[in-house]
Amino acid sequence: MTPARRGLPYGVFSRPGEPRRVGVRVGDQVLDLAAALGDEVFAAPVLNPFMALGRVAWREARERAAEAARTGDHLLPLDAVTLHLPIEVADYVDFYASLEHATNLGRILRPGEEPLKPNWRHLPVGYHGRSGTVVVSGTPIRRPCGQRPPSTPGGRPSFGPSLRLDLEAEVGFVVGTPTRLGERAGAFEDHVFGVTLVNDWSARDIQAWEYVPLGPFLGKSFATSVSPWITPLDALEGARVEGPPQEPEPPAYLRRAAPWGLDLALRVQINGETVAEPPYRDMYWTPDQMLAHLTVNGASVRTGDLFASGTVSGPRDPGSLVELTRNGAEPFKLADGAARTFLEDGDTVTLTATTRDGICLGEVSGTVVPAT
Amino acid sequence: MTPARRGLPYGVFSRPGEPRRVGVRVGDQVLDLAAALGDEVFAAPVLNPFMALGRVAWREARERAAEAARTGDHLLPLDAVTLHLPIEVADYVDFYASLEHATNLGRILRPGEEPLKPNWRHLPVGYHGRSGTVVVSGTPIRRPCGQRPPSTPGGRPSFGPSLRLDLEAEVGFVVGTPTRLGERAGAFEDHVFGVTLVNDWSARDIQAWEYVPLGPFLGKSFATSVSPWITPLDALEGARVEGPPQEPEPPAYLRRAAPWGLDLALRVQINGETVAEPPYRDMYWTPDQMLAHLTVNGASVRTGDLFASGTVSGPRDPGSLVELTRNGAEPFKLADGAARTFLEDGDTVTLTATTRDGICLGEVSGTVVPAT
Repeated sequence: MTPARRGLPYGVFSRPGEPRRVGVRVGDQVLDLAAALGDEVFAAPVLNPFMALGRVAWREARERAAEAARTGDHLLPLDAVTLHLPIEVADYVDFYASLEHATNLGRILRPGEEPLKPNWRHLPVGYHGRSGTVVVSGTPIRRPCGQRPPSTPGGRPSFGPSLRLDLEAEVGFVVGTPTRLGERAGAFEDHVFGVTLVNDWSARDIQAWEYVPLGPFLGKSFATSVSPWITPLDALEGARVEGPPQEPEPPAYLRRAAPWGLDLALRVQINGETVAEPPYRDMYWTPDQMLAHLTVNGASVRTGDLFASGTVSGPRDPGSLVELTRNGAEPFKLADGAARTFLEDGDTVTLTATTRDGICLGEVSGTVVPAT
Repeated sequence: MTPARRGLPYGVFSRPGEPRRVGVRVGDQVLDLAAALGDEVFAAPVLNPFMALGRVAWREARERAAEAARTGDHLLPLDAVTLHLPIEVADYVDFYASLEHATNLGRILRPGEEPLKPNWRHLPVGYHGRSGTVVVSGTPIRRPCGQRPPSTPGGRPSFGPSLRLDLEAEVGFVVGTPTRLGERAGAFEDHVFGVTLVNDWSARDIQAWEYVPLGPFLGKSFATSVSPWITPLDALEGARVEGPPQEPEPPAYLRRAAPWGLDLALRVQINGETVAEPPYRDMYWTPDQMLAHLTVNGASVRTGDLFASGTVSGPRDPGSLVELTRNGAEPFKLADGAARTFLEDGDTVTLTATTRDGICLGEVSGTVVPAT
C-alpha cells in the first residue's frame, strides 16, 4: 500500500475534451469518483458541493472510495489527466502562527524593536488575503511589479518588478461545513474538511513599503499556490499531536479541546534542491484555535474557505528566503554554484509534506516567469 | 421624473414564495426586468451574470429598462417585495482614501507620531476584507465579541462584547468585467459596473489590539452592510468631477486618465437623526486609481469584486464616530438627550448619498443587536 493510497486525497481532474470532475488520488492513479460511486456530487467541477455535505458524508465517501480503489476499476493514470484548482475559494485568511517566523520577520522588518507585538501570544494574528488569485500547483508565477521602498527616508518609492520575490511554505485548511453569521464555530473536525499545502508567494519590497498600517496587500495578492490535493482530516489521525505549550494561557475561547497539532515534515525545494525542511508540529497556534478565533466575533465561515497557517519555520529550517538569507544579507548557494538571496526568474519552487507514518500531502509547485 | 427614476439602480428582489430575480428601481416601485425584457440573465438570483456581460450590454439594458419603465408594465410596489444582497461578492477590498480620515485615525491610534505613514501619499493604502460577511441593508448587526486591549502595557487583554462599536460611511465600487491574472486593468469604466453605499462596521477596541502588524481583521469581519441598489456608472455622468490635486504626483500607473471623482453628498443618520454629511468629492484617491493599484501587480479582479473607498470624512463631517467623538473623549447628544460616544444596542445607522443633480444612491441601514 503506497502512502498516497492511504491518504486518499481529493482533487479535481479532467481528460482532454471532457469536463472537470472529482477524483481521489491512489498512488500514481486517480480514481474517477463520479464513475466509481455513481454520485452526481462528484461530477461537479470543484469539491465544494461534496464538502458542503458534512462529516458523515465525508466518512462514507472515503470508505466507499477505498473500497472502489481496491477493485481497480475507474482508475486513470495521473499523467493522462490535468489537475485543476480543487476548490472554489470563498474567503482566504492567512495566519502568522509560527513563533520562529514571527520573531524572525519582526527582527528583519522592525530592527531595534521588540520583534513580537504585544498581541502575538494572546491571539493568532491573521489577515484576509485575495481569494481570486489562489491558483493550483503548476500555474506560472509572474513576477509582480509595484512600488518599492524609497532608498532614503522621506524619498520617493521606485516602481518596477519586485527585486525580493520570496516563497512562504504553509499548511492550509479547507472549510466544508459552514457556520451561521453571528454564531461561533463548533468542533474543528465538524467544520474542516481537509488539509492542503500553500505557497504564499511574497514580494518583500512591495510588502515592506505598503504594509503600514493596514497590512500586506499587493505584496501578496498577485498569486497564492495550493496543492491540487486536499487530504481529508480522517487521513491524518496518525499525525495528530498536542500543540506546544502556550504561555500565557490564551482566553477560554482559544483553549484546545483536542490535539490538532499535526506532525508534518515540510520540504522546500528550489529547482529540485532542498533548501529547508520546516517542522509543522511546533507551530505555536494550532488550526482549531485559528477557526475558533476566526468566528469568535460572529463572522461566518463558508464552504470553500481556506485558512493557512502562515510560514512554517523551525529554528534551523525557515520556510521563507527572507529568513534563510536574513533579508538578503547572507546568500546561499544552490548545487549549480549559483548564489541566491531571493527568487530569480525561471526558479521553480516546490513544497511537499509528509506525515511520520508516510502519508504524502501532495506537492505545490510554481515557476517564476519574468515581469511584463 | 423622480431622482430614483433617473438613477435606475439595479437590485435583486423577491415576492413571497417566488425566487429572487433582478429588478430596477423606479421611484417607489421595482421593475421586474426578467418579465419586462424577457431576458434570462435577469432571472438570476444575483446581478453577477448580467454584470459579466460587459459595458455594451449594460448600456443596452439601461436603455431598454428606461423604455420599459415608461410603459408602466411589470412595476411592483417596493413595499410588496423583499430586497436581497444584489451581488455575489468575490473579493472585498477596503481602501483608506480620505486624507482627513487617515490623518484623524493616525492621531487617535498612534498619538505622538506623524499621523500619515510615509506611503500614504504615494499609493492608495488598502487591505482585503471578508467577502462572506457582506450583508444587505436591513440585516441586524450583532455586536461582536473579542479581545479588547489590556488596560496597562504588557497586561492581559479582556474578552467580551466590543465597547467601541462604530460605523464607517463609505462608497463602494462593483466590478463587472474581470481582468486576467498577470494583466493590468484597462479603463475604469470598462471594468466597473456601478456604485453602492457601504457601512464598514468597526469594533475599535478589537481592531486597536489586533491590527499590528497585519492589519484589521476581526474588528471588521463580523459584518459589512451594503445598499440593495447598485447605481450604474452611466447614471453618474453628471456627478463626475476631477479628484483633488495630488502632491507629490503619483507614479505613472496611478495618473488619472479621466475624472472619476464623484460629487456625492453622504448623510450619516443615527436613529433618524443626521450626525454628519461627509462630502465624497474631496476624497484624495479616486476609484480609477484604486482599480489601477489593485491590478498593477498582476492580481486579477473578478465579476462581483467590491472595493470600497474607506471612510469618507470631511473637515467638519467625519464618517465615523471614532473621529466625531475623538475616540470617545467628546460625546455628542442625540435629540432625545442621550449622549453617545460609540453605538449602543438598538441604534439604527442609516447612510444615504445623493448627487448634486438629485440622483439618490439608495440607502444602507442596520440596527445593532446585543452580543450573545
